Amino acid sequence: MTYCLAVKLDEGLVFCSDSRTNAGADRVSAYSKMHRFSIPGDRQLIILSAGNLATSQAVVDQLERDIQADTDFHFGNADYLSDVADYIGRLSLDQQKKFVGDDGPMAGYKPGASFIVGGQIKGSPLELYLVYPEGNHIRTSDQHPFLQIGETKYGKPILDRIIRQDTPHEVAMRCALVSMDSTMSSNATVGPPIELLFYPADSLDAAEYYQYEESDPYWMKLRASWDKKIQESFNELPSLGEFDSVD
Amino acid sequence: MTYCLAVKLDEGLVFCSDSRTNAGADRVSAYSKMHRFSIPGDRQLIILSAGNLATSQAVVDQLERDIQADTDFHFGNADYLSDVADYIGRLSLDQQKKFVGDDGPMAGYKPGASFIVGGQIKGSPLELYLVYPEGNHIRTSDQHPFLQIGETKYGKPILDRIIRQDTPHEVAMRCALVSMDSTMSSNATVGPPIELLFYPADSLDAAEYYQYEESDPYWMKLRASWDKKIQESFNELPSLGEFDSVD
Repeated sequence: MTYCLAVKLDEGLVFCSDSRTNAGADRVSAYSKMHRFSIPGDRQLIILSAGNLATSQAVVDQLERDIQADTDFHFGNADYLSDVADYIGRLSLDQQKKFVGDDGPMAGYKPGASFIVGGQIKGSPLELYLVYPEGNHIRTSDQHPFLQIGETKYGKPILDRIIRQDTPHEVAMRCALVSMDSTMSSNATVGPPIELLFYPADSLDAAEYYQYEESDPYWMKLRASWDKKIQESFNELPSLGEFDSVD
Repeated sequence: MTYCLAVKLDEGLVFCSDSRTNAGADRVSAYSKMHRFSIPGDRQLIILSAGNLATSQAVVDQLERDIQADTDFHFGNADYLSDVADYIGRLSLDQQKKFVGDDGPMAGYKPGASFIVGGQIKGSPLELYLVYPEGNHIRTSDQHPFLQIGETKYGKPILDRIIRQDTPHEVAMRCALVSMDSTMSSNATVGPPIELLFYPADSLDAAEYYQYEESDPYWMKLRASWDKKIQESFNELPSLGEFDSVD
């Protein structure tokens, strides 16, 4: 399993991903699910991937090859990032179709993958998309400025409480880590290293990037501190004794 | 959708359920999903239900009828609560089979339902089971003393952090409400009134029961207080500035 999320803030884009992949419980590995394509001063693209690893690796490889081969359309010459999201959807479908058929040994096999695609092209605003396994995509809204793929539910409540469009980026990054922590605590198939990236709006170059192993001092401190604070907060809640039983 | 949970503590059993049912977004109603069967001094049974409403209502009705008709096996004469869980599984399957077929207009229709079944029979310890739509069931373990059905993921992290077998019942009940709050905040198809019940071990009679409408003063206070404390806790976490960027 996987958990990836991204947030579109006034200040820029935040991306966070885990690195655990598994094909059965005895085949657990660590792969980065965060991919960055940078043409400094002109355009930035960050991709997070979840789902079938073969499909997502093939999509990222093809994206890279198309840039190298300078094909008619690739990330380097696209006019809009939404076109890049469309193109990633098409690459993903093409990969999936290689293996899918109505009959034969692969009937019913669905090597689907989801992608979060965000970045900026010079002269355009920040953009952030979620590309479904079916190839189509959605974007964030002002009311709902984050997107998630993979094992999304455990980590959603804290995002719902904290993240707004005008949240400072440091807060959003910390919230992404707490969301990741909640997910890892409840689901053993999401695991470190955790990657975290902030792309500042209109920089078209710089990015803050962090990677946390399980034993990273900040990551350990954050997790322990959050757990302690949750316990304390919980203990300070008004107790049930403050209202009456009706039975 | 639905969210129900139950906890097996040293002190007794805690049950919590929402009341929203929906058949499409324009057909939203409130039904209790908590059912209690009591033979004071002899046995107690509490059932929480999720899934197809027709199936779960029919199961609970049949359970009641079998007690009235004093059939060969019913809750009132069962030797073990696990047999009652088995019997609920059979009743559920019987209901589902009425509508399911390999062909015809109902082909592929699965009116499945899940149940949490807990209580105590005189002379036996507390028992708590989760009955799957397939009719089989699991129980809690010492390491994992709670069970959930329906929309389970949003509310699981707080249970993982707080609930242990020796947690006092008031704390576990409050935690169940916080878990319900997280679920309702992230999923609009889980809604009030919220029902909360505590059955004290070996009482074979008494139960503390609470019901919260959306506007209930304690419920509103709990939600607001939790939201505020989470925000405060979050703001007190060590900030990202305390460690170094590697890029």
